[in-house]
Amino acid sequence: MTGILYGIGAGPGDPELLTVKAFRILSESKVIAFPKKRSGEKSYARQIIDAYIDPKEKDMLGLVFPMTKDPVILEREWNKAADAVAEKLESGENVAFVTEGDPMLYSTFIHMKNVLLKKMPDVKTEVVPGISSVNGTAARLNIPLADGDEHVAIIPATDDRDALKRAIEHHDCVIFLKVAKVAALISSVIRELGLEQYAHAVTKVTSEDEVIWTLDEFERAEPNYLTLMVVKKK
Amino acid sequence: MTGILYGIGAGPGDPELLTVKAFRILSESKVIAFPKKRSGEKSYARQIIDAYIDPKEKDMLGLVFPMTKDPVILEREWNKAADAVAEKLESGENVAFVTEGDPMLYSTFIHMKNVLLKKMPDVKTEVVPGISSVNGTAARLNIPLADGDEHVAIIPATDDRDALKRAIEHHDCVIFLKVAKVAALISSVIRELGLEQYAHAVTKVTSEDEVIWTLDEFERAEPNYLTLMVVKKK
Repeated sequence: MTGILYGIGAGPGDPELLTVKAFRILSESKVIAFPKKRSGEKSYARQIIDAYIDPKEKDMLGLVFPMTKDPVILEREWNKAADAVAEKLESGENVAFVTEGDPMLYSTFIHMKNVLLKKMPDVKTEVVPGISSVNGTAARLNIPLADGDEHVAIIPATDDRDALKRAIEHHDCVIFLKVAKVAALISSVIRELGLEQYAHAVTKVTSEDEVIWTLDEFERAEPNYLTLMVVKKK
Repeated sequence: MTGILYGIGAGPGDPELLTVKAFRILSESKVIAFPKKRSGEKSYARQIIDAYIDPKEKDMLGLVFPMTKDPVILEREWNKAADAVAEKLESGENVAFVTEGDPMLYSTFIHMKNVLLKKMPDVKTEVVPGISSVNGTAARLNIPLADGDEHVAIIPATDDRDALKRAIEHHDCVIFLKVAKVAALISSVIRELGLEQYAHAVTKVTSEDEVIWTLDEFERAEPNYLTLMVVKKK
């Protein structure tokens, strides 16, 4: 019988933010798949769940999802990853695919599942939601994302100045993802709107490597790929 | 010594979607506070955590947060709730205040904390994020909220037709909260935009009482207070 593919949210970084359900399914699954940027590189998702599993007792399946927008490379690598998962599922094993945060919010699981479903249209999949970095950040900053009639938006940062400005103007709270590449631009938009004291940047929230910056600090920092920014107008 | 106030996310409904951290803090806390709409009524948050605690071993503190917009009633009841929590904290007990979903996203914890901080400005608070109904819904529908450059918005439903329309037009995915009161209006906007097959309504997601509706079904149903609608354009 074909195995089940689980998409498991590992949460934002703190291993204790794994759900009881994710823990159970990881315990019950023989094959644990996890994404990494390069072959040989550490996986953030795997790091989060490391405390809960003994890799000697599991079939640890590291899958490479390269950080590129080149469609040829992406198709080739997503196909390779899906093939590796398909092989396990066809042999009857369940596969628990772990991603940081939530599997349905900007995760590698979405790509992998889409490619896999073309190869195995009838495969059974189940998603176990995870705490996203968005909710993790609100908890650590002790700032409500929204209350009452307030609007929240989650938006990947862009180099379009007007789009950044409109996003802040149209919502009570905006979470900009992947701000590292446009750090100077996004800071200048926030200053132009006079919202300096309402902006915070955070990276690897709730993990041991967590960093939280005010806007002043952010402008002098070197943010990494997992850095997001929250602008909560009050 | 004054106790610590914990804001604990119980997740959307399935008790297994509690985090390991929430479980630990509930186990360690003597006082478990939870919101309910009326005195004597069942609390959804409490229902979710019921499997994990023995109420005989705990000090179960039900707090009434009435469903009204009357500012006089709200101030009186929030004050009462904060006083009850303050009394426990001042006696040295930690208080674990449980809310459904995530404590920083449209939760009663936000109100209670704000009122409490006016009485006890130095009280230590810690928030344990929870799986919100938004992420729970995406998992159950098996629909990605967003990927790549897509934008997500979380917006309380309103009776302003143009505002509903603009929200859908400006984002790749919109989650409308509390749609029961404007069910007919929101359906007609979605039909006008030709997005019938991309809209789903969900109530008490992941719980035993979960209901998932297509737009056709939703139009014939009687949605309740906890019903949200996802519109994911593709």
